[in-house]
This record gives sequence, structure tokens and C-alpha cells, in this order.
Amino acid sequence: MSYYRARISKLLAWMETAKIDLAIVTSPANVMYLTGFYGDPHERWMGVVVPRQGEPFLYVPVLDRNKAEAVCDLPVHTHGDEDDAVRLLLELLGCDPAGIGRIAIEKTHMSVARSEQVQAHFSGSIFVNAEERLTAMRLQKDEQELALMRRAARLADEAVAFAFSQIVPGRMEYEIVQAIESFAKRQGADRMAFDTMVLAGEKSALPHGAPGTREIRRGDLLLIDLGIVWQGYCSDITRTVAVGEASDRQRAIYEAVRKANEAAIAAVKPGVEAAAVDRAARDVIAEAGFADSFTHRVGHGLGIEIHEPPSVHGKNGQRLLPGTVFTIEPGIYLADVGGVRIEDDVLVTESGAEVLTAYPKELQILPF
Amino acid sequence: MSYYRARISKLLAWMETAKIDLAIVTSPANVMYLTGFYGDPHERWMGVVVPRQGEPFLYVPVLDRNKAEAVCDLPVHTHGDEDDAVRLLLELLGCDPAGIGRIAIEKTHMSVARSEQVQAHFSGSIFVNAEERLTAMRLQKDEQELALMRRAARLADEAVAFAFSQIVPGRMEYEIVQAIESFAKRQGADRMAFDTMVLAGEKSALPHGAPGTREIRRGDLLLIDLGIVWQGYCSDITRTVAVGEASDRQRAIYEAVRKANEAAIAAVKPGVEAAAVDRAARDVIAEAGFADSFTHRVGHGLGIEIHEPPSVHGKNGQRLLPGTVFTIEPGIYLADVGGVRIEDDVLVTESGAEVLTAYPKELQILPF
Repeated sequence: MSYYRARISKLLAWMETAKIDLAIVTSPANVMYLTGFYGDPHERWMGVVVPRQGEPFLYVPVLDRNKAEAVCDLPVHTHGDEDDAVRLLLELLGCDPAGIGRIAIEKTHMSVARSEQVQAHFSGSIFVNAEERLTAMRLQKDEQELALMRRAARLADEAVAFAFSQIVPGRMEYEIVQAIESFAKRQGADRMAFDTMVLAGEKSALPHGAPGTREIRRGDLLLIDLGIVWQGYCSDITRTVAVGEASDRQRAIYEAVRKANEAAIAAVKPGVEAAAVDRAARDVIAEAGFADSFTHRVGHGLGIEIHEPPSVHGKNGQRLLPGTVFTIEPGIYLADVGGVRIEDDVLVTESGAEVLTAYPKELQILPF
Repeated sequence: MSYYRARISKLLAWMETAKIDLAIVTSPANVMYLTGFYGDPHERWMGVVVPRQGEPFLYVPVLDRNKAEAVCDLPVHTHGDEDDAVRLLLELLGCDPAGIGRIAIEKTHMSVARSEQVQAHFSGSIFVNAEERLTAMRLQKDEQELALMRRAARLADEAVAFAFSQIVPGRMEYEIVQAIESFAKRQGADRMAFDTMVLAGEKSALPHGAPGTREIRRGDLLLIDLGIVWQGYCSDITRTVAVGEASDRQRAIYEAVRKANEAAIAAVKPGVEAAAVDRAARDVIAEAGFADSFTHRVGHGLGIEIHEPPSVHGKNGQRLLPGTVFTIEPGIYLADVGGVRIEDDVLVTESGAEVLTAYPKELQILPF
């Protein structure tokens, strides 16, 4: 059985238990998870249609037929711009709407207008949320997913190495962004997972700064945060280096962040609360005297989406499960010194953690 | 009265007529239209809250407070990550939910989950769609909007001129994309309006092709489609040139597209059906013998969003109104010759059309 069929079987097992007659899964991330097909249909209909009785199928705009058939082992049905997409879906299902008691949809993803369209055809049905179940499934990655995530992480390491090789006097932040994105394209990445961040000097102290025309100068801390999407799966890495030289203060915050990153990784194993991972990093930074300068959660889940559960923050009592991947990215940001963040992608294994990103973490002082 | 206040007054006039007690407008495009504030709150709450009786306000995540207060002349209220955002909104409104009979929301934008949150607080209320009214308002741009759109179009012209100056042997498509995006950044653009398209030779014949490592060669048709966002408003331009030389067949399709573009522009004036503009272009291309190779609608509305009403296609009987801006972008795509598309941004005036984009349209043969 393919990985995709196995995922649909799990969904069906839940539908059986929860007495759900029909699931219509329409978010691009969950459609990809269940079929391997990634599409962005804009205002058009796209979905995996899973009846409790009967054959599941993928339903896409006719424009996407060839791409969908090439990757998806479910039957692919299509609709054109002049079709009534919901009525056609009903015909494809070939069942009496009156026999459909409960329908699972993604309530955070589906719009009110779209749900009213469905409701017009299934007027007696109750809508329940499919998201909790799909989120739980995606929380534990299977081997196919992990193989892709390891590859995405490897490419992120290579992109970081390439970026640091491009730092010469006169170079501006956004030029390094472009060099990174060209590199990723040449390596065959699908795309960047988010807007690449290259921040120098005082700008490295802005956790949400945007790269611009700031030139990289001797004495800067230089922070690079990038993510690669490989066959639909994301990586996310941050490394910070010193340019030409490092002051004592820069060295001090660097070492605190590095130890916090390592302490958090050491805290990862199945059964531990997500909050404990955050706390492990935060305690190290507090001890070093920088508690107020670590202003965000320690990390976030990672997979098909760049931000997915679990959120790794101090109030999340959720216990870690094998197969979950998340970032660990403590940081210290000081307006007059600069910012340091060190981010890895970490997989919860049966007994502890596997760190997917491998670029070195000792303080690196770039020749300049 | 500011342009933003005038827009809210128009919305209020509609609410009066349609007996709507409260409007909650949450899509980033409509929030910007009504307040000048552009934000992407991801999963957080953001909205313009307009009670029929009482003071309208902007409601944003606390992270966005400073940015919102800097641009918005409405009162700005905020919520934090630990607040119940809907309950807090209710407190800010200071009214009895039982007195709210009809609430206007954007049904295509608001998710089922979000609407259920609102419904839990306004259990007796009826939800109506605010989108039709807001779309109608945005269809006729005011002078403030037109000033920004003229500026965005001017920058698009300059970016095209810059791009064609960068064409030398060995240059790849994606390198030209990067050169364009750097140029736009240096000019102060907010961002590109969509993924810039630079397609050479056989790839120019793919209306949805993606720029890659294809090198630009003598004899290619080279198609560049780009859009600039200036203070929240989009431009969208396409120009096609010949590299080094042009075959007779390339000249023939170029001239047909150029004449189609001009015929469609000549057809624009208030009261004309959108379909007539499409037909004007299509007739010229059919006469030249390429009817089957013009495979898309002639254009789309433009403004805060890169695609907004009206859709300019052969079945749209909607009559054009002064102040509407849309693209006119006929094309001919031949697998063995290449593709040509020529796209302008056109404003419907009181008596005809103003073409916002100004880059020349005579066939240009780049030295190579």
C-alpha cells in the first residue's frame, strides 16, 4: 500500500469511529498529504473526496488534470470553469445526499461562502471538523516524509554554507538573499519556504526585520534565516556569524544562545512536554543574564507547512511523540550589539532526538 | 473628510438601506481600502468594525499597533494572543448582542471556524454578505487610488526598460527576474505584485511558464510580465521583444497582437460591455488567422489586488464604469515560433480610456 493510501485508510478508520459519511478535504497542505498532489486552485474547487462507502477520489480544476494524474494514485476527476463544481461532485459520488448524515470539512480553511454551497446540496447534513484528526496524523511523520525532510535540511545546510562564502565588502543584505535563492533554484528546490532573511549589524537585532540595502560591515553580527522546500516538505535553519571580528559582548550572547540551543535539543524525547523544551533553552539564557532579550517561543512544528503544530512555547503541555519534527531556535537581541539566533530542525525519535540540520554551530568569524 | 472616511460613509449608507446593524470587514484588501492599513494577521483576528450606530474602529493584533496607528485615522484597538478576541471586540462595541439583528461579513473570506466564533456571541443574528457592496465600491477608483496606480504603472514601465537593458548572451531567465526585483526594491516598491515572468524562446509560448535556467539566445522571442506594488496598489505590464533578429512569422504574430491590444483599448468607454473589449481584441487576432492561439480572456480588473473585478472575458455583460482599471493583454502562443503578449493597464474615463502603462509597443529587436 502506498504511503498516501495508508494515510487515507487512517482517515477512514476515524470516519468509521466518528460515524462520518463523507470527508471533503480542501486545504492544499492536506490535499498534498493525502494524495501527493500540490496545487493552488485560487478561487476554484479542489479537494480529496472520501466517502465512508465507496472509492475516494481527487477533484481538481481541469487545468490541473495532467499534473494531478502524474503524481496521484487515486482516480482524478475534474471540473471546468463553467461547471457547477458542487453539483458535479455530487454526481461523481453517485449517492443520495439524504443518506449523508455527517460531513467532515476543514473549518479553519473552508469559507462561509463555500460551506453554504455545500450545505445547499446536503441540507440535512451536519458539518464536523476534520482538522483535529488530520493535524494529529501529520504530527507523526512517516518514513517517506522524513526522507524528504532530511533532504530539505541537507539543502538548507548547503545554502547556508554557500551564503557565508558570498560575504565580501560592499555586499548588501538583499544581494545575499538573491544569491541564496539562485543557489536553491540551481539545486532543484521547489521554492523557498518563506522570505529569506539576511540581517546585518543593528538589523540582526530585529526578529522580524526585512533585508534591504544595508551593506555588510566589519564588526557586524550577520544573521541568516532560510528555508528550502523539497518535494513539498520544508526545512528552516538560522545561523549567525561575526564579520571580521567579534567583540566580547557579541561572543557572550553567541555562547549563551549556542548553549541554549544545545540544552533544548538535549531535552527532546518522547513523552516530554513541549513546554520543557522551551524552558530548557530559556533557563540557559536567563542564567547568562539575557532573559528579557529572548522574546519569542523556542520553536514551531515543521513539515508540509513552515509553521504547523506543535507550537513549542512555555505553556504548551502537549507531550512529544516520535516522528514529530520542530524547530529549536533560541535567540538574544540587543539593540546596541546585534542579534544572535541559532535554529535547527529536530526530529523526535523513539529514544531522543535526531537533528536534521547539520551546519556547524561554533562561533565563526568570517574573514573580511 | 479623508478618502478613507468617505469610503466608510458609503459603506454606512448601504448599511442604513439594507438594515445592517454591524459590519465586520476582515480581508486584508478591504481593511486596507477602508483604513489605509495593510496587515497580514495570519491566524489572528484583524478587522474594521463598523456599527451602524457608534464609532467605527480598526481592530488588530497588538503586534501591529504602531504600524496601524501611524496610517489609520480611525481609533485603533488591539488584542493580545491570550485574549478571547471576539469577546473583547464585543466589549469594545459596548452594545447588547441581542440588539444586533443583521451582521455583514465577507463570506468568501471568512472561514467557517471564524464565523462560528462570531455566531456564538451573536446567536440571534443573521449574517449577510458585505462583499458585493465592497466590490462595487472598489470598482470605481477615487483620485487617491488613481494617483497611486499611475505611480505603480510608471514604475512598471521603468522596470521593463531596465530589464531589456540587461539582456546579454549567456543571461538566464531567472537572472533577469532577479535584476528586475532588485530594481523594484531600489525604487522603493512595496513588493512585486506576483512572481515576475521572464520567458525566452519556446517558453514564451507557455502562458503560465516559470522562469528557469533557460539561456536567452539570438532569435528568441523574449516575454516579460511583471507587476509593481506601490503603497498598496498594483500595476501589471507585459512586453515582448525579439532578440537579435525576428523571423517573418514572429513579426506576423507580433503585429497581430499589437493591433489587438490597440483595438481593445479603442473599444473602452463607459457603458460598453466588458465582453465587447474582449471581442475587439479577439476579432483582430481571428482575422490574422490565429484565433485558436489566443487562449485566455483579454484582461482582469486591477487595484489593491492583482486580480479583482471586472473579469474582461467574452461572456461578461457587465457595463464599464468610469474609474475602473483593468488590464488589456491579448496574446498569441505558437509552440514552434514562441509567444507574444502585450499588456497595458487601462483606466475607464468619463469619455474613453487612459492608458496608465506607457512603454512603447512597436516591435523592438534587441541588439545581441
